[in-house]
Amino acid sequence: MSMATPRSTVRRLPGRGSYDRGVLNAILDEGLVCHVGFVVGGQPYVIPTTYGRRGAQLYLHGSAASRMLKAMRGGIPVCVTVTHLDGLVLARSAFHHSMNYRSAVVLGIAQEVVDPEERWAALRAIVDHVVPGRWDEVRPPSESELRATLVLRLAIDEASAKIRTGPPVDDDADYALTFWAGELPMRTTVLPPIADPLLASGIRVPTHVTGYRRPNGAGLD
Amino acid sequence: MSMATPRSTVRRLPGRGSYDRGVLNAILDEGLVCHVGFVVGGQPYVIPTTYGRRGAQLYLHGSAASRMLKAMRGGIPVCVTVTHLDGLVLARSAFHHSMNYRSAVVLGIAQEVVDPEERWAALRAIVDHVVPGRWDEVRPPSESELRATLVLRLAIDEASAKIRTGPPVDDDADYALTFWAGELPMRTTVLPPIADPLLASGIRVPTHVTGYRRPNGAGLD
Repeated sequence: MSMATPRSTVRRLPGRGSYDRGVLNAILDEGLVCHVGFVVGGQPYVIPTTYGRRGAQLYLHGSAASRMLKAMRGGIPVCVTVTHLDGLVLARSAFHHSMNYRSAVVLGIAQEVVDPEERWAALRAIVDHVVPGRWDEVRPPSESELRATLVLRLAIDEASAKIRTGPPVDDDADYALTFWAGELPMRTTVLPPIADPLLASGIRVPTHVTGYRRPNGAGLD
Repeated sequence: MSMATPRSTVRRLPGRGSYDRGVLNAILDEGLVCHVGFVVGGQPYVIPTTYGRRGAQLYLHGSAASRMLKAMRGGIPVCVTVTHLDGLVLARSAFHHSMNYRSAVVLGIAQEVVDPEERWAALRAIVDHVVPGRWDEVRPPSESELRATLVLRLAIDEASAKIRTGPPVDDDADYALTFWAGELPMRTTVLPPIADPLLASGIRVPTHVTGYRRPNGAGLD
């Protein structure tokens, strides 16, 4: 795929790299927080934030006043990374310790979205990315809220995924050692919802909350 | 504290910012993966990796061949961010949706560690950061493994923490709406260990695995 450029090509352990859009989208869609990298005055900043995806576009949003988004607004280079930690990999040697993970790295130029319809669709995508079905059961943004919100688009054109799974891989000689080796799996779990203490009585917990679930299956039962 | 500089000062929602070393260290110590930002040819890159802490120093490591660490080796500016997602905050309005989280952002110049004793201590700190007690029950690095490993130090001097907790905060008028509002708490959980299929018989699971626990209490019982 064209997503592999010299900049987005996985150099370290290239066998773990993937440029398949389906693989990349699955990692992006499961994530809740991305880490956005941008440069101001030569200094990189890495800021956690939410995001949404529509087709081959990633959307970010935030206050029109935020330093991150202000810096991006002119269309500066960014890197958006989403990482899922799936487990700790304990090898017999310190050197071969590792982690099982899935990560997606998207490089490109983030551009401000100005078209009102695309802005609306992007904000909906972000809210529904985090809590599917939520957008239809909230008060939508007002005109003044929209004015205070900057929406940015990043094309998923230059990107890579990196995945490690499975047990440790030790040096041949080390398999004779008596140290325990294996994996400690890690998961992100969702706990039962906590109602706002100011919630009016008689409001039921909606099914998009009681049935909350990430694409990988993690969620409430 | 001196950790608050014009660059590290939290601008957005400054009430959520902290420059207390204890607060910052707690966030760093609980994390397993950081996102390291660095710049190559004007392009920011954000890469997930492990780390360790010794006092006011963060340590990163990796293959001497990796692009990230090669770029850092000359002492270039980096940003190391650690984020814990604690919950999704569902407000009555789309605009006030948020997340509960704790994040630490450390800015500075990463320097290569060349002193053999500091390199050893840093590698031990990284392994024991991820799995406390592990270093004493593995084969330590050989001379050739040490040569293949680049170790970097980043002083925790210019840094900030940002924390959000609690229920949504809606506009006054919106509390009369009948939309459900509250929090969906999220946790990172550790699942029972999976032994390496190639593990020799008779090797017990060590207590640093059976009793695995993060500083916040998450772990195996």
